[in-house]
Order: sequence, then C-alpha cells, then structure tokens
Amino acid sequence: METDAPILLAAVSFLSALQMARLARRVGLCRLAFNIKPPSVTGPPEFQRIFRAHQNCVECYPLFLVMIWTCGMFFNEMTAVVGGLVYMVARQIYFEGYIKSGEERLLGFYLTLGDFAIMSLLTVIGLLRGILLKYFQIQL
Amino acid sequence: METDAPILLAAVSFLSALQMARLARRVGLCRLAFNIKPPSVTGPPEFQRIFRAHQNCVECYPLFLVMIWTCGMFFNEMTAVVGGLVYMVARQIYFEGYIKSGEERLLGFYLTLGDFAIMSLLTVIGLLRGILLKYFQIQL
Amino acid sequence: METDAPILLAAVSFLSALQMARLARRVGLCRLAFNIKPPSVTGPPEFQRIFRAHQNCVECYPLFLVMIWTCGMFFNEMTAVVGGLVYMVARQIYFEGYIKSGEERLLGFYLTLGDFAIMSLLTVIGLLRGILLKYFQIQL
Repeated sequence: METDAPILLAAVSFLSALQMARLARRVGLCRLAFNIKPPSVTGPPEFQRIFRAHQNCVECYPLFLVMIWTCGMFFNEMTAVVGGLVYMVARQIYFEGYIKSGEERLLGFYLTLGDFAIMSLLTVIGLLRGILLKYFQIQL
Repeated sequence: METDAPILLAAVSFLSALQMARLARRVGLCRLAFNIKPPSVTGPPEFQRIFRAHQNCVECYPLFLVMIWTCGMFFNEMTAVVGGLVYMVARQIYFEGYIKSGEERLLGFYLTLGDFAIMSLLTVIGLLRGILLKYFQIQL
Repeated sequence: METDAPILLAAVSFLSALQMARLARRVGLCRLAFNIKPPSVTGPPEFQRIFRAHQNCVECYPLFLVMIWTCGMFFNEMTAVVGGLVYMVARQIYFEGYIKSGEERLLGFYLTLGDFAIMSLLTVIGLLRGILLKYFQIQL
C-alpha cells in the first residue's frame, strides 16, 4: 500500500458506496412492504417516490465520484473530503424528503447542487493551476 | 506508463466494463426480437426482466468500481482482482437467472451481496490500517 | 498536488461530468415545460425520448470513465483525452438526435460505439504490453 495515497478520499468514496447500498436496500424493503415483485417498477405513490429517489442518486453518483477525485487530486484532499461528506448528508436529506413528498425532495436537491457548484469551482481552479504548472511552467 | 500501477486491477475494471457493454447489447437484441422501439421501455415480461436485470447491473456498477479500487489500493491488489472476477461471475449468473424468472435472479443477487460484504470488510481493515499508519504512525 | 498526475485526463473526466449535469438539467427543464412532476416518468413522446436519452448516457458513463482511465494510464494519456472528447461530442449528437426522433439517435449511438471500440482496442494493447513488462519482464 502506498502511504502517500489519498486515503481519506478513498475512505469517503467507500462510505458513499455503502450509503448507496443502504438506499438500494431501502427500495428493496419498500418492494417487500407493498409486495411489488421485480421486475415490476410500478406501485403506489410511496413506492414511486422511493424508487425515483434512489434512481436520482444512481444518476448523480458517478458525477460525484469524478467531482471529489478531481477536486481532491488537483485542488486539495481535505476540501474534497468535506465536499464528499456534505454530499452524503445532502443525498440523505433528499432521499428522506422525497419519501414524504415530491416537494420535500427540493431541500436536499438544492444542497446537492450547491455542494457540486462549490466543488466544481474549486476543481476548475485546481485544474487550471495544475495545467499552467505542468505544461507552461507557470506557478500561480 | 507507470510500471508500479495496479495493472491487474485496471484489467479487471476494463473486463467488467466490457461485460456491462455486452449486457446492454443483450437488452438491445431483446428490443429487436420483440420489436420494442426506443424510447419505449414496456413490453412482455421477458423484456421487462432483461431490462431490469441490466438496470440493476447499472446501479451496482459504480459501487463495484469504488469497492475493488479501495480494496485493491488499501488492502491488497490480488484480493481485489479475485473479488472483481467473482463479481463478474455473480452478475452473469444474476442476469441469466433473471431472464428466466424473477425468482431465479436471487442466486446471483446473493452471490453479489456476499462478494460485496467480504470486499467491504477487507476494505475497512485496509483503510483503518492505512489511516493509523499515515496519520498516527501506528503500524499494525 | 502531484505534477506528474494525468491532469488532462482528469480535466476531460471533469468536463464530461459537467456535460452529464447539463443533460440532467435539460430533462428537468423538459419536466417543467410539460408540467410532469416527479416522481412521474411518463408523458408525451417528447419527454419519453429526452428521458431515455439521458438514461442511456447514465448507463454509458461509468463504462466511459473506466475506458478513458485504463486507456490513459496503460496506453497513452493524450489518446485517451482525444477519445474522451470524441465521446462527449458523440453523446451530444446522440442526445440532440434522440430529442428529435428515435431514429435520429442512431448517428450519435454509432459514433459512441466506434469511439468505445477504438479505445477498447488500444486499452487491450496497453494492458497486455504492461502485464508482459510488469510480470514477465518482456519489453515489447
């Protein structure tokens, strides 16, 4: 094992994967509760909401991974770790809100968006600084 | 190219991406067989099952990638390579089972789950050991 | 920050994540235009097509990431960067085509496929060369 590898970033990635697994399990438990057997994906509004809440997390997840790793490698590891933990909290709020009603998903949705916006900005700074240094020998 | 890069882990990741592409192609062939033109996603139960089997693999895939890379970087590369190959077999069994019936997806599903559970445990050990070493200079 | 890290590959990954976010936003705007409130995923054919176009991109995205990173690390970074940019163009053509009609998604679809095929071939070459060098000390 490399001791200089970004281990906290890896730890947050791993925790976020466990969170995704738990959200998937919640959808599975909801299937059991309403007796909705796969491959069916239709059911009462309660099931539709938890199903879509999970799908939205599935859609966001690879973007999130790219975001924290580019931010962590080229801006700053600790910042990306914090960004990753905020993302996990935002997604949990989104998921729990969406279960209650379509409107209540919005708080977690905007938190996710804000977290992505800040991480994106920092990533752009880190990438530009890194490209200037590597290819143009300009140290900012 | 770095000669110390985890090339076998990369090779397994690449093979798993090819597997995902082949599963997607199977869904496409099933569309043709039943003449279900995109964007429609409804059809006979046979199509519903293969469609959902693929979707489930899509949902699992980013988790799997995080898992084998954290396990491979911070526990042991070869263990993660084996875990990755077992995952690919488990997913194939899941997919072929699901095509036959909703119940027959369960064997591959539990195999996937078991593989994830073991890799998770080893990853936790590797991450804790690595964090103790890097941030607390404690060698276990 | 490591100055020898594949920063252009990271930059392309980051740009592709932004593209994915923009495609997701387009689906959201289409929801608003047709007043299709989540969790509903049904609506007029226009919505069905943009929804499926995005879903297909979601399905392809983790494969794409594995592809450019294995190609970039074990074949050649610049080749993978070009492959990544071609992918982004191909996906945009796919998305814009699919919005118009199911048939018009095909050009972008085949472009994506061709890009994947070429990157896969180069990745196989890079991985085999790397494995021969690392484990058998054979320099090709």
